[in-house]
Amino acid sequence: MTNEDLFIKMALDAWHTYIRRTDELFSLFSDEQLMKEIAPGKNRGIYLLGHLAAVHERMLSLLGLGDPLYPELWQPFVESPDKEVTGLPSTQTLRAYWKEIHTNLNAKISGLSTAEWFQRHTAVPVEDFTKEPHRNKLNIIINRTNHLANHFGQLLLLKP
Amino acid sequence: MTNEDLFIKMALDAWHTYIRRTDELFSLFSDEQLMKEIAPGKNRGIYLLGHLAAVHERMLSLLGLGDPLYPELWQPFVESPDKEVTGLPSTQTLRAYWKEIHTNLNAKISGLSTAEWFQRHTAVPVEDFTKEPHRNKLNIIINRTNHLANHFGQLLLLKP
Repeated sequence: MTNEDLFIKMALDAWHTYIRRTDELFSLFSDEQLMKEIAPGKNRGIYLLGHLAAVHERMLSLLGLGDPLYPELWQPFVESPDKEVTGLPSTQTLRAYWKEIHTNLNAKISGLSTAEWFQRHTAVPVEDFTKEPHRNKLNIIINRTNHLANHFGQLLLLKP
Repeated sequence: MTNEDLFIKMALDAWHTYIRRTDELFSLFSDEQLMKEIAPGKNRGIYLLGHLAAVHERMLSLLGLGDPLYPELWQPFVESPDKEVTGLPSTQTLRAYWKEIHTNLNAKISGLSTAEWFQRHTAVPVEDFTKEPHRNKLNIIINRTNHLANHFGQLLLLKP
């Protein structure tokens, strides 16, 4: 195993660990619990479920792995704050989306080669990437894992 | 820049980004705000300040960079839950520790060579490291950044 393979493994291990923990947490919560706020006046569990699903879906295009399955999640769960949009999908629907999005994303991720992980992600212009080669596909994984950990810590607060 | 150097930069960039964000957040909060719980019945801001300071100090020994400056933080802020220990250091003292701990840690981290980052961290026995070479010093940075992001997300909830 080369050092390149090793750190791809390190970054992906951390990603899969937090996805698994978050999966377990969402399974633990009832639909009623997910309608509660993580703290008074703050985001509800259902919003974080939709938010993480939407952000993770968008990783597909950043990694050059295809288009999101549910682009309609972006507007209510990323561009809008919680409790501003009416007519959100039901918790049951979002749970199904969550599962499908991650099955799809993780299957596609597993097909990327070592060389591909060090290529630029699609939001970086070619000319910038020459000067900033750290803005590669693997960096998307690192940053999104931290973003996930951030919200995972908040979701933990829904535990009674 | 080799791919090894690139990956070290990516992992350290994420670490420094979350340290800076957390620094800014602690500076924003008054001592009174830090005495509040992040959500009803959950940890207080002061506990998370001490907890992160203690966990980050312990990184020194894991990275083979020396002993903690304030080992006395471990028992009240890692081994004990919040509100169980009386006689915690004051918020002012913890803020000073926080600053000193990170100045010290980040100075020592910046001296590690590319080869050293891929060496085992001190909690992995030599014989295990042969089979599990991902358990290296850089993995400590990746894991502690995720741990920090987790609590950073919780600390954000102290904002009014």
